[in-house]
Amino acid sequence: MASANNNSTDIASSTGSPLTQAQLDRLSYPASSKVYITGSRADIKVGVREIELTPTQLTNGETEYNPPVRVYDMSGPYSDPAFTLDLTRGLPALRQGWIEERADSQALHQPSSHFSQTREVDLRYEPWRMKVERKPRCAMPGKNITQLHYARMGIITPEMEYIAIRENLGLTEPSLEEAVRQQHPGHSWGASIPAAITPEFVRSEVARGRAVIPNNINHPESEPMIIGRNFRTKVNANIGNSAITSSIADEVEKLVWATHWGADTIMDLSTGQNIHETREWILRNSPVPVGTVPLYQALEKCGGVAEDLTWELFRDTLIEQAEQGVDYFTIHAGVRLAHIPLTAKRVTGIVSRGGSIMAKWCLAHHQESFLYSHFEDICEIMKAYDVCFSLGDGLRPGSIADANDAAQFAELRTLGELTQIAWKHDVQTFIEGPGHVPMHMIKENMDEQLKHCQEAPFYTLGPLTTDIAPGYDHITSGIGAAMIGWYGCAMLCYVTPKEHLGLPNKEDVKQGMMAYRIAAHAADLAKGHPGAQLHDNAMSKARFEFRWQDQFNLALDPETARAYHDETMPKEGHKVAHFCSMCGPKFCSMKISQEVRDAAAADEAQQAMVEKAREFRQQGSEIYHPASKGEALDNA
Amino acid sequence: MASANNNSTDIASSTGSPLTQAQLDRLSYPASSKVYITGSRADIKVGVREIELTPTQLTNGETEYNPPVRVYDMSGPYSDPAFTLDLTRGLPALRQGWIEERADSQALHQPSSHFSQTREVDLRYEPWRMKVERKPRCAMPGKNITQLHYARMGIITPEMEYIAIRENLGLTEPSLEEAVRQQHPGHSWGASIPAAITPEFVRSEVARGRAVIPNNINHPESEPMIIGRNFRTKVNANIGNSAITSSIADEVEKLVWATHWGADTIMDLSTGQNIHETREWILRNSPVPVGTVPLYQALEKCGGVAEDLTWELFRDTLIEQAEQGVDYFTIHAGVRLAHIPLTAKRVTGIVSRGGSIMAKWCLAHHQESFLYSHFEDICEIMKAYDVCFSLGDGLRPGSIADANDAAQFAELRTLGELTQIAWKHDVQTFIEGPGHVPMHMIKENMDEQLKHCQEAPFYTLGPLTTDIAPGYDHITSGIGAAMIGWYGCAMLCYVTPKEHLGLPNKEDVKQGMMAYRIAAHAADLAKGHPGAQLHDNAMSKARFEFRWQDQFNLALDPETARAYHDETMPKEGHKVAHFCSMCGPKFCSMKISQEVRDAAAADEAQQAMVEKAREFRQQGSEIYHPASKGEALDNA
Repeated sequence: MASANNNSTDIASSTGSPLTQAQLDRLSYPASSKVYITGSRADIKVGVREIELTPTQLTNGETEYNPPVRVYDMSGPYSDPAFTLDLTRGLPALRQGWIEERADSQALHQPSSHFSQTREVDLRYEPWRMKVERKPRCAMPGKNITQLHYARMGIITPEMEYIAIRENLGLTEPSLEEAVRQQHPGHSWGASIPAAITPEFVRSEVARGRAVIPNNINHPESEPMIIGRNFRTKVNANIGNSAITSSIADEVEKLVWATHWGADTIMDLSTGQNIHETREWILRNSPVPVGTVPLYQALEKCGGVAEDLTWELFRDTLIEQAEQGVDYFTIHAGVRLAHIPLTAKRVTGIVSRGGSIMAKWCLAHHQESFLYSHFEDICEIMKAYDVCFSLGDGLRPGSIADANDAAQFAELRTLGELTQIAWKHDVQTFIEGPGHVPMHMIKENMDEQLKHCQEAPFYTLGPLTTDIAPGYDHITSGIGAAMIGWYGCAMLCYVTPKEHLGLPNKEDVKQGMMAYRIAAHAADLAKGHPGAQLHDNAMSKARFEFRWQDQFNLALDPETARAYHDETMPKEGHKVAHFCSMCGPKFCSMKISQEVRDAAAADEAQQAMVEKAREFRQQGSEIYHPASKGEALDNA
Repeated sequence: MASANNNSTDIASSTGSPLTQAQLDRLSYPASSKVYITGSRADIKVGVREIELTPTQLTNGETEYNPPVRVYDMSGPYSDPAFTLDLTRGLPALRQGWIEERADSQALHQPSSHFSQTREVDLRYEPWRMKVERKPRCAMPGKNITQLHYARMGIITPEMEYIAIRENLGLTEPSLEEAVRQQHPGHSWGASIPAAITPEFVRSEVARGRAVIPNNINHPESEPMIIGRNFRTKVNANIGNSAITSSIADEVEKLVWATHWGADTIMDLSTGQNIHETREWILRNSPVPVGTVPLYQALEKCGGVAEDLTWELFRDTLIEQAEQGVDYFTIHAGVRLAHIPLTAKRVTGIVSRGGSIMAKWCLAHHQESFLYSHFEDICEIMKAYDVCFSLGDGLRPGSIADANDAAQFAELRTLGELTQIAWKHDVQTFIEGPGHVPMHMIKENMDEQLKHCQEAPFYTLGPLTTDIAPGYDHITSGIGAAMIGWYGCAMLCYVTPKEHLGLPNKEDVKQGMMAYRIAAHAADLAKGHPGAQLHDNAMSKARFEFRWQDQFNLALDPETARAYHDETMPKEGHKVAHFCSMCGPKFCSMKISQEVRDAAAADEAQQAMVEKAREFRQQGSEIYHPASKGEALDNA
């Protein structure tokens, strides 16, 4: 096995950007360990992150144990110190055994896509190529290998069990029962969130189409996860290069970085050079499902001329990407010819790239798009690899002015019809949503989606609640994302501060992730997801008790929390100070509050004493000297 | 008049932090001019900011005029290039004439407060002292000089007219009627937002207590503004030093900085050295109302020992600050003895500094606080200077766990009772609110407040929707702030990224302001505030038309928007590029969308032609050659 540094140099040399073991090493979480929970069989091993806490110092000099806090972990093997990184080989194929033992798919001798076949022997791409020995797999003839198919057959797959364990985080243990109960009941707007997630519940949610498990059989490196309104709210991070900027190494780095900060899935939206090779590096090194918009590559293949797109070209692209392992495809099949004129009077027309490409095609050919007319053919491809549909909202509003308009809702109804067709083929499906929507019009989006798409999971971009803050659209959209997550949206597509302005860099990816992890968690709290409040309660207890290190370690972003604290109180001793720089030592409300609590306890005792004294006095109070009597009544 | 640089040096020399004319000069807004709208008399001159836009380049080669966008301006004279800065003299006293002509207040020979009298002759404070020649004013005996008193008498004051003009931004002009109508109707949850704000509407809202105009007669430098649910949602920025950090110059700089980024009011929460002098510098240089928590200074006066606080000491502090010009006082009079035990089982006890100080006092003396027992005495002071009550929520929740609990709502009901007493004295009053609240429990806060406080304006800190993201609490709370703003909260107290970790610096102040201007504007859009969407529409039109400069200039933070864009596309030519780095030139959806729009128009024409061709063919189509017929039908 080549050393990690050499591997990094391999990528770096072809792209001019470094990606070193050292950089990834810095991605560990403080005071955290990777704990594996084993399922019904030894190869179901679910990694969760456990944050160690320090004990509480009680006023009587004793200490109180604070149990570690478990958090859902998207970072995969990267956060496991026992894992040896080798980016050129990719992550271990943890699902390979499950896929093979089902004996309903087969390895192919060569890729089925014409493009892949010719690309594989094209020496010009050699410098960018990742060497992968595993052959692509495909369903055996006549077999349907989707998780939806299994679920409907009543089969609980290892993936489903894995997910149940992962969603629960072991919070069903009797020792945690009391702690889990310490939370607000939540208001879930008609969701059906159980007290504990069982493998059977996962199966039933998938079976009725209310949740999806994006895991292409050609992406066995990914850890199973689920997207559905009765599970934890998920977050997607978009990465990908464009014709203007970015390299393969940058994108792999962003992938690892995004999962470190909590991306449940990533979308590779590359539109620039070497899309095929970039995707391979990303997939082989991604512990989370990867989505794409195949249309972008198809358009590149025909020189960027939308009118020249054909079904055959698109079909070959789907197969190319499905055999690489893409877990979900955004397909803009809802952009129908009749919807296009509905956008003509909009302030911002069609802002979805895929939507505008297809609209252009439809107008040029004056016929329904091949995505719509070949939808059942697409289903046949999806089910041969278990790729999920992410039915794209090509007509989503790109401005507050265009929110919830006729074009948007016409497309949504079409997406509902397409969902039925996909389900007929047992193809897992979720639905993309807006976009730009003022707060008071967000709920209508969720309600209409639930109604027309029969509770298929909703996956929205924000929505942005105002247009006036470019540079801060992670915030304008974080507001909308939190709200729609609460209303029932299953996955939130992050928006970075660079939205509308440029391609996000690493720091932008992090800022976007933070805003969206906040939105998703706020949604889980509001829905009353069992155990969601444990993390908040642990933080607040640490805060009240001035356990600064625990506060940093429990923070979504420990580094930043610590750095901000240290800006004004840098000394090590300040980490145990019973105050902070906001109020200073004399005014600290937390400190005073503890004194109030102690006083209240003392006061209760004293009150009893005073009461006793009064009784005693009424009875003559003979044994009291006048002085001591005065003292006893001082505080009455 | 001393030069600005010398003045800066004066402050700088005593505090070690520079505050120069040059720094303030950089605070201008790009492509913006300060426009003054004159009212019914020459001395009612309301400054608004007008952002110039470039014309649209039409496809036919002509151009289309884009009217400038007017935005509400909090920056006062600082953004007027004609204004000569002199921090040692403070801003012009624009309200002085209105105050004097009412002939119901008088200038005092010396400050009434004992503390001010002794402080004035204490040479130790000379280096920090601002030289002010204007004498403090006070109501004449028997006179009530509050805007609420005038409003109830049916008097429309110049302040009220000023506010009406300011809130409207001139959007009532017939030329803008059509543009203002181009917005979503909004959902205001029972608010009574009129199509245009008249001076009489301002008066009537103040008269019924549903809005307040914080403007102490001793702060004539402040530009009148209003806080109420039927007006634009306002934002407060907290500044102030603590015992640990910060200087006078830092705080004055933060004040100017905060108003530049849109603070409608600021609160000086200083708890450290030289509180009195710091406050004087802030007030004299503040174009926005200033609030304080007088208890902080009172506590400093008795060495930080809460038990030693007395009514006399507190009363003297109120008068001291009222005569300096503080526009609203946070008074924690709702912390009653009986409420305190309700906090004992909380996860985070009492987190309000004022609340915990008073709780400690109550327990120590085992009696109701002097704030509660002397509430009518406090009203007498408030009405002598027209200081507003900001009735403090001393028992607000400090964690998700403690949200909406018995202690919080018990205090809220007391605040409702105190509001009635304040109104009896014609003292303007608004109510502070939480804090930390999960999304689904936010609305209850607003509903309870409206009910118990009879629609007195609500003023909340966030609320934070989760506890787990220290370092990002401007976002955790921006979500809650936007929502409660929509539900009817009149003013949002910003939270900076340093919340829970340290004292905010200038950059933190800006980040907090940006998150909260977004929240307030999102709330205005959702409530359907007339004209609110104009700004969004202008931005989105500029975006669709690739008018990059206009997008930057219209942004809440033009500098950051421009810098982010330039990171990937730095050349001047890119400012007119019809694409951005996110998609690159070939894939730009906005560009494609314009092509779709053009094609749709062409297609309509062609459709008509095809239809004509078909008719013609049905009639024999003699004049068509077969080839041209084929062409004509190509796109049918």
